[in-house]
Amino acid sequence: MSKNLLTIMSCILLLASCKQQNDQKRTYNVEKADEQIPKQKVDIKTVGILLYDGYAPLDAMGPYAVFSELMGSKVFFVGRHRGLIEDAKGMKVQVDSSIADVKQLDILLIPGGFKQTFEATKDKELLDWIKSIDSISTYTTSVCTGAWILGATGLLKDKEATTHWSSKKLLADLYGANVKSLRYTHSGKYWTSAGVTAGLDMSLALINEIKGEKYTK
Amino acid sequence: MSKNLLTIMSCILLLASCKQQNDQKRTYNVEKADEQIPKQKVDIKTVGILLYDGYAPLDAMGPYAVFSELMGSKVFFVGRHRGLIEDAKGMKVQVDSSIADVKQLDILLIPGGFKQTFEATKDKELLDWIKSIDSISTYTTSVCTGAWILGATGLLKDKEATTHWSSKKLLADLYGANVKSLRYTHSGKYWTSAGVTAGLDMSLALINEIKGEKYTK
Repeated sequence: MSKNLLTIMSCILLLASCKQQNDQKRTYNVEKADEQIPKQKVDIKTVGILLYDGYAPLDAMGPYAVFSELMGSKVFFVGRHRGLIEDAKGMKVQVDSSIADVKQLDILLIPGGFKQTFEATKDKELLDWIKSIDSISTYTTSVCTGAWILGATGLLKDKEATTHWSSKKLLADLYGANVKSLRYTHSGKYWTSAGVTAGLDMSLALINEIKGEKYTK
Repeated sequence: MSKNLLTIMSCILLLASCKQQNDQKRTYNVEKADEQIPKQKVDIKTVGILLYDGYAPLDAMGPYAVFSELMGSKVFFVGRHRGLIEDAKGMKVQVDSSIADVKQLDILLIPGGFKQTFEATKDKELLDWIKSIDSISTYTTSVCTGAWILGATGLLKDKEATTHWSSKKLLADLYGANVKSLRYTHSGKYWTSAGVTAGLDMSLALINEIKGEKYTK
């Protein structure tokens, strides 16, 4: 995990407690902090995390926790279907927006998983939705084997990308990605991360990119 | 995050892919791995993660992901109430077992949060349930400000404990814990961790304690 992670992550609860102070009408420190934080480089209003049955829990929940605490944007799940979506370990999350409902996202994040992730690479409706969202997104991202799905759209062709170590060859051979042995990569708007906790690193690095170091530090 | 974390976390997907190989009837490596893993020190059949409205997402979901991938036990959520439980950021998880339904856990984990976590310290029914579960649990644990709730039961009195840095004084003054500036602590069966990602470290260290280093390495 990147060296800056602990420093940055400790800001999460600090910012959260600032928010609580705000609730209690003690807004002085918050307003002062707002003045000091520079305007972010790009405007990110919506962050959508794709959930499909069988996703790997930390791939989605790690970035969800980071984005929802630090991004100051609408961070929500977009289900492959509406209703309860079950992760690879049995947790059921209620999802109110499906891919049929969501037409625009500033950031799309695709988590990895196992068998169902591979099946998703053959799901034309899902791939078409990703391409449509990508056509106007600011960033399109994947965690771990989520890169299989992103790769299957053709969007990673000739771009630097990474994934779980066991899937690197597949990502290069099947989808033409220029696979790197890094915790996370970015090639223009496409950000991808390696396994498990690397999704946390990537989310923090992306927030750093958007909001500038002054914010995350 | 502890130095061993990356090594250990990379095992998660390795073990998960072993499981997939198993599904595909290629069981050879899995069986070989099973032979090499020594019998664990204590038998852990049930891991319950308390969910209450307003919990901090990563505090619960980090340990959930680690335990559910690595523990080989039943890992599930125990709700303050049944039905949908909403975290501090709006994610709704469907929980089928409430504290009224669950009478025994080998490991209990209490995540932190904000206002509602503090309110939980005054919830007699919840505190009585924690004490009842603790009376027969193998480990009773907390992440971040979850230590407030555990402290309010009286169980942390004179024991080494930690919490989010901003709450350390409160934990010592109100609940008599011997507060340490560590990522996680253990004092007999009581394990507590500092903020956010420290809950991941603690979960891995606890698995290491239970299953032995040979398993986690």
